[in-house]
Amino acid sequence: MNNADFEALARVLMGRIFIELEASGRHVHVTEEQARALFGHGLTPDRPLSQPGQFVAKERVTVIGPKGRFDNVAVLGPERREAQVELSLTDGRTLGITPPVRSSGDVTGSPGCTLSGPRGQVDIRQGVIAARRHVHMTPEDAKTMGVRDKQVVKMQVYTARPLVFEDVLVRVSPDYATFAHLDYDEANACGFRKGDLGRILS
Amino acid sequence: MNNADFEALARVLMGRIFIELEASGRHVHVTEEQARALFGHGLTPDRPLSQPGQFVAKERVTVIGPKGRFDNVAVLGPERREAQVELSLTDGRTLGITPPVRSSGDVTGSPGCTLSGPRGQVDIRQGVIAARRHVHMTPEDAKTMGVRDKQVVKMQVYTARPLVFEDVLVRVSPDYATFAHLDYDEANACGFRKGDLGRILS
Repeated sequence: MNNADFEALARVLMGRIFIELEASGRHVHVTEEQARALFGHGLTPDRPLSQPGQFVAKERVTVIGPKGRFDNVAVLGPERREAQVELSLTDGRTLGITPPVRSSGDVTGSPGCTLSGPRGQVDIRQGVIAARRHVHMTPEDAKTMGVRDKQVVKMQVYTARPLVFEDVLVRVSPDYATFAHLDYDEANACGFRKGDLGRILS
Repeated sequence: MNNADFEALARVLMGRIFIELEASGRHVHVTEEQARALFGHGLTPDRPLSQPGQFVAKERVTVIGPKGRFDNVAVLGPERREAQVELSLTDGRTLGITPPVRSSGDVTGSPGCTLSGPRGQVDIRQGVIAARRHVHMTPEDAKTMGVRDKQVVKMQVYTARPLVFEDVLVRVSPDYATFAHLDYDEANACGFRKGDLGRILS
């Protein structure tokens, strides 16, 4: 084998053992109707995210709570059927909102907030959550790593402040790319830097 | 045994297995000279901390970095031989300072910042750190839990978002009370609430 072959082999082997970590900053998902109310039109893709088809929009919003606000917050597309505002617990303290720790899409009974864009303002009745830590995984990787969709696992992270995250939700779909997602409290608690890896323990 | 006896016994047994967690918010330690420059006098105790002899002072300071500032930051006493500013990595991002993760007192080569009080301003040349997670322990508890001063252990935390912190420094002294100290990134990453417990795994 030549050097390129060795590197390709190493990449495949690494991918069977390790999962790349990503830190998700605060961000907002909106419906088509809300996008029109906030921006006057639908979302415009700016750059792609690691998950196929998902993107960071050119549009930005202000998120307003009873005690504070964040300007210039990322909006992720495509539009969804219900609004969702993903914050860290630290962010929640700044806004004066206590987001429950929930899986994406599970927003029933969560607090609301106000979103403000260049064309208007939208009050959302619910949808402010702290995302439960999770791993997106292809069916192939799930098979190799011996885990199923919706399984809850422990994940060792190989970071500057190493730790083992428990209660990590595995989500398997052919529409996913394999990445573990942390929020910024978790990323800072483990000293995450781009490119850091994790490994499922059980 | 009566109820009071049972409760006392339960407390002793719990104390041999579990360690109470505490979250340390951002705070500042100053020298006597710096206290006089900032406040016109030495520190005035407001309320005691869990560690014997340590206190939150009535005095508060503003911590200023190149990109931001925090007003009304707690000052802990008594005064020390060298200034130390303990921030989370999230706080560091707000100030535009990257604090290294260090044990308390280990400030050589760390970044500086500006402190501002009602009487004046002090530039500290170094001392801005993110506190390495650690457990303060009495010699009795260290013996019971089978650990030594300066040992590095793993600690399971029984919190809303459970995890196992690795790289936890044990510090043993007859001057300590037994408590595990996390910063707010770590506290939020594990969903800490007052009264939550941890346990040393190794």
